[in-house]
Amino acid sequence: MLGRLYEGQDCSACRTLELIGERWSLLIIRDAMFRGYTTFSQFQKALGIASNVLTKRLEGFVQDGLMEHRPASGVGEPGEYRRTPRALELKPILIALTEWGDKWVSEGPSVFLDKRGGEPVELQALRASDAQRVAMAEVVAVPRAMARKRAR
Amino acid sequence: MLGRLYEGQDCSACRTLELIGERWSLLIIRDAMFRGYTTFSQFQKALGIASNVLTKRLEGFVQDGLMEHRPASGVGEPGEYRRTPRALELKPILIALTEWGDKWVSEGPSVFLDKRGGEPVELQALRASDAQRVAMAEVVAVPRAMARKRAR
Repeated sequence: MLGRLYEGQDCSACRTLELIGERWSLLIIRDAMFRGYTTFSQFQKALGIASNVLTKRLEGFVQDGLMEHRPASGVGEPGEYRRTPRALELKPILIALTEWGDKWVSEGPSVFLDKRGGEPVELQALRASDAQRVAMAEVVAVPRAMARKRAR
Repeated sequence: MLGRLYEGQDCSACRTLELIGERWSLLIIRDAMFRGYTTFSQFQKALGIASNVLTKRLEGFVQDGLMEHRPASGVGEPGEYRRTPRALELKPILIALTEWGDKWVSEGPSVFLDKRGGEPVELQALRASDAQRVAMAEVVAVPRAMARKRAR
């Protein structure tokens, strides 16, 4: 069985994948984020996954600070798993995955809009200094230490 | 064993995860994209993964149009797996994963720069109509049909 850690890799993308890279994880986060689901049965109905896998994922999210568990407050009330601010910031990952699938596999059923004006939103790389758009082909990864040297 | 498809899900992010969501897949793409690796031995040395898993991933990428396989051109020359333009457009996914890990786990060893000016680059959600920045908290997902109706 494959593990979930990438122990030899000094890489922030790997650290993120260790928390949300397992099968179903990002779909649970998606439903918490965009559909507001909070209960075990909501997630299970939407995803149709085995109870033991869903339990494992939700408990992992609680451990990793991506969800908070609120036990049932009364008889017949379900316990809840609420996404934390930390989980909300996974949104760009979901948007990037969706944009790629829309373009390169097939146009999917959802679009991302600005809640205030209802206008379509897209991900873009911007220069931090002046917010100018940068084509993805122009974006390179360099060692952080080298970037600091250049900035001096 | 868990599969790689999400058959009941009508969702573009799922379509993408079906191609690059398995363990190691995004790290192979990362090394092809940012380090220019092309050979089996480069990927294996960098990632330390089992040969059978790496073979399976690379062959899957070729099948799915993310890599092109060029057989060895002579004795002692390795065959190559070159990323396609389709794979290059996975870059925002890797940047989003990295930005999250940098912020919420620990600052990693790499930063993303604009190749031309060497300045730091960051992902941002923009309104498609006027390129204004939109806070991630304001970005919602709605059915495509509903978005078309609003746009009329």
